[in-house]
Formats: sequence, C-alpha cells, structure tokens
Amino acid sequence: MSGALPGLVEIVEVSPRDGLQNEKQLVGTDAKVALIETAIRAGLKRIEATSFVNPKRVPQMADAEEVMARVDRGAGISYSGLVLNRRGADRAIAAGCDEITYVAVASETMGVRNQGRGVDQILADLGDVAVATREAGRVLSVTIAVAFGCPFEGRVSGRAVSDIIARVLEHGPDEIGLADTIGVGVPSQVTDLFGRLAEAAPSLPRRAHFHNTRNTGFANVYAALQAGVSIFDASAGGLGGCPFAPRATGNIATEDLVYMLDGLGISSGVDLALVSALDPWLAETVGHPVPGALGKAGPFP
Amino acid sequence: MSGALPGLVEIVEVSPRDGLQNEKQLVGTDAKVALIETAIRAGLKRIEATSFVNPKRVPQMADAEEVMARVDRGAGISYSGLVLNRRGADRAIAAGCDEITYVAVASETMGVRNQGRGVDQILADLGDVAVATREAGRVLSVTIAVAFGCPFEGRVSGRAVSDIIARVLEHGPDEIGLADTIGVGVPSQVTDLFGRLAEAAPSLPRRAHFHNTRNTGFANVYAALQAGVSIFDASAGGLGGCPFAPRATGNIATEDLVYMLDGLGISSGVDLALVSALDPWLAETVGHPVPGALGKAGPFP
Repeated sequence: MSGALPGLVEIVEVSPRDGLQNEKQLVGTDAKVALIETAIRAGLKRIEATSFVNPKRVPQMADAEEVMARVDRGAGISYSGLVLNRRGADRAIAAGCDEITYVAVASETMGVRNQGRGVDQILADLGDVAVATREAGRVLSVTIAVAFGCPFEGRVSGRAVSDIIARVLEHGPDEIGLADTIGVGVPSQVTDLFGRLAEAAPSLPRRAHFHNTRNTGFANVYAALQAGVSIFDASAGGLGGCPFAPRATGNIATEDLVYMLDGLGISSGVDLALVSALDPWLAETVGHPVPGALGKAGPFP
Repeated sequence: MSGALPGLVEIVEVSPRDGLQNEKQLVGTDAKVALIETAIRAGLKRIEATSFVNPKRVPQMADAEEVMARVDRGAGISYSGLVLNRRGADRAIAAGCDEITYVAVASETMGVRNQGRGVDQILADLGDVAVATREAGRVLSVTIAVAFGCPFEGRVSGRAVSDIIARVLEHGPDEIGLADTIGVGVPSQVTDLFGRLAEAAPSLPRRAHFHNTRNTGFANVYAALQAGVSIFDASAGGLGGCPFAPRATGNIATEDLVYMLDGLGISSGVDLALVSALDPWLAETVGHPVPGALGKAGPFP
C-alpha cells in the first residue's frame, strides 16, 4: 500500500543544541563536547552543535564559540550552527561551522513572539545570511518552524507552508527542513507538506524535524519515509522539551528512531547500543530522566 | 503514496483489563466500574471489562463476576471478558459477557512460560471455548499474542504467524487480533502480518493491539490504517505495562490514538477531552503517573 522506503537515512543529531537549549540547568562546555564525541562514536555524522544567538536570551548556548573550538574536526563530520540573523551567521562562519541552519517560521505570530520579527523581516534576514554563507563556502539549511501548527495561530495550512517554501527557495538554500516545533503534526500533514516541498523543489534535500509531544512523532517519521524523506533531526534521549508544553516530551529520541529504522531495514550508520547507552549520562547531566523509550525498554531482540 | 485510510475506526478500551492487570496496587471494583462508566461517557462502545482467569495468578481480576454484574447494560455497549480456557469461557458467559476474547500465542515458549501450555494445547482449548461461545450466542474474538516478537524467542516470522492464523481460523472466530504484546513491532511487520491475515480471511474483522514500549506503537497504528485495519485496542492513560519491560510504557493510550485519528480525519466516536480528562484520576487510582502524552501536552489546537 505504501511507496518504497529509502534504503539509507541521515540523522542530524540535535541534542547539543535543540536538546539542551531549554534545559534550566546550565550544562558545561566539557559535557557538551563529551556529548558530541559520544554521538560521533555512535556513528552520527551531522551534528547540530550549538546556536549563535543572543547569550542573554539563551544562556545555555553562550559558549558556542568554545564548543566549536573544542570539537574534533576529524574527517567526515559536519557541524551546524543555528542562527537567526546575519550577525549569528558571521559568528558561526568564524567559528568554523560547516553548515548554517537558519530558522524561518510558517506563522507570523510565532515570528513576532519568538524571534521579535514578522515573516517579511525573517525572510529579508535570510537573504543576508544566505549571501554570507555562500561567500564563506558553507552549507545553508533552512528550517521552517511551526510548519504543522503554531501555539498562537493553531493548525497551519498547507498553502501557508507552500508560500513560505517558495519565498525561502528564492535564497537558494542547500536543504529545507519542515519542523513540527510544538509536536502537533499528524501523518497526513507530513504527506501533504513534504509532497508540497518536493513539488516546489524536486531535487532539493528535504529534512524532517519532529517532536513526540503528542505521540505522533514516529508515525510522522514513517509517513515522511513513505514520502521519500531521508534526513531526520533527532535528539539523544529525546532531550529537548518545548516551552509551550513544559510537562511534555520533546524531540524524537535518536535511539528510538534508530530502533525503528533498524527494524525497517533502513541503514542510518548509527549503533543503537552506543546511542542508547547515553541515556543515564544525559539524565545525570540535565538533572532529570530523559524520555527516550529504548533506554527504559531495552533492545530487542 | 499510501492507500486510502478507513473513514471510521472502532476502539476497544482495554484499560479495565489489560491496563490494570499488571498494576501492583489492587484497584477496587468501584473504581473499575467508574472507569468503565467514564469510558462509555467518552464514547467508547467496546470495553475489555475483565478477565476470567485464576484469581491466584491474577489477583487484580478476582472480581470479574462482580464487575460484570455492576456495569451498565444499556444499549450499544459490548463487554468482553478475556479467557484462557473453557472454564474461563463458562464463567464469562455466565457473567453476561457479550464477547469472549481468547488469547492464542505465536510462540511456543511464550505459551509454555506464560500460560503453562504449548501451542497445540492452546489451540485445542480454543476449540472448546469456540463451541461454548457459539452455543451461548456470544461473539468470539481471538488475539494472537507476541505476533511481532517474543521475549524468549525473539522476532517472530511472518510464516509462523500465518500458521497460527490458519489454525485459529479452523475454529471459526468472529474476529482475529494481532498483538504486539511486548512492544517490539515496526511498521513493515504490521503491513506484512495484517496483509497475511487479510489474505487468509478476507472478510474477517481484523483488530490491532499495539504497545508503545519502544515508541513504535503509533507508527504501527498508521501502518495498520494503511493496511485497512479499523479496529484498535487502546488503554486510557496508556495504562498497562509489560512484565518483560518493567520500566517501559505499555499499551497505546486511547487519548493519543484519538488525537491522531482526529487529525487524520478518521472518526472514532470518542471525545478527546473526556477521555484525556481521565488521566489524573487514573494516576491517583494506580498510584503512579500514567504515560499517555495528551494529558501532559494538552489538546491542540
């Protein structure tokens, strides 16, 4: 009944940035570097290492330059830095990030409330970031946040997402990610939105960013695989809650994603045992249990 | 890419039996009856009310007859009693159960270790149960446990499940359920196994029983919907762990299932707010937090 699934999937490990960003307990640079090193040993090759944003607004990411200076620059690992404007992009480029991840939004209110700018300004700033990234020879990935629903505006229409996609494409990104930032999406939306993205840019790499806030995250992964998506953000331990649902779980857990991919016969290059083994260390580092399922359930068979 | 999804889904609310069965804290009959009444008010029409098994082995279900004597026998609600043999079936019939749910197994070792009988004996006993159920004019639903994997034998092959299906069909069940008892299944198995079931019995109702132990439960629901399955077991609050993974979550939560179905435009007749509202009461009744996501995340939009 379903289309052929991809044989290979690339996982972007977002725990160092998206996973830790909203943790109240400040995590030291040593721990961040250790997390990145362990992720790499587990086989992850794309790492969202940090963000270059205002340290007053996001104290957890104040050590962005130091993290980038200390990570292993060995062969084959691509580090991304999240940025919201040209200033952040300049810092990320100077710090040696291989990829610049820029966050656009699918909802005007979310832009204003979360980034202090409406969609027009966010896209104008993307223009500046794109120029700087291209000049520096780095990769530009653009994430469209709240593409599946906005805490202020409710469910976001497919047409609205198509409009943002078209405007993002004007700036020549190397990849577009669609993000269910608050974990409200369902599989039919995944099929629709990633279908729209494929239609708008047939050869552009498509990345999915799902949260498991309402237990739809892995159903959404399966729908995305069926839509031909082969790049997924995930966070070790499922680290990374959402300020709009403080008691809920956040990002899909890397180990749970790898479990499902392994079962589906899809190669990710990630060692399930090594990434699952991170759970107790993560729980101690952030000071609370982490929501990933494999750490509690254990492997099978 | 996917087949048309069913427009209507029937949910079997299993919290009174499967949900409570492994809870250490004994739950009183009053609370069980209240749970059933609330589920019915939320729109659930099929209730796995209790099991008729040895009360020494399952003390939580020792009040099976009393539960059945006290539930509302108003129009349109179908109560099932789980049984493992003819003796249990006779009790369930005498207690007025509308449906008899018999548990077969897809793994010899699971049968021996969990039910004290191998597959041959389990199927012979099914014969007796089927005769009694038919004579009493009740509905017979057979669940094939550990169809996706066995804690003792590992992953179960599709061919082994096909064999059990064929032998169960000899006894003329009104429905067959395939159960991922320990929560190890992945969507490709769902497609395969429910495809086999449809091929073996094209017009027989098919029921899916998934656990979310390794976060594949709702991806499996989505795959089952694509395979045309329209009957799902679920448990309010996600109540119902598994003794083989004591720290892990268990049954898929009714409220999370309804959230996904609502989002997919599939009608279940269940009111999401009413079933979600059960969570705090359930947590108090069993003495620990329940794993359902909607209770923590809240509705959307």
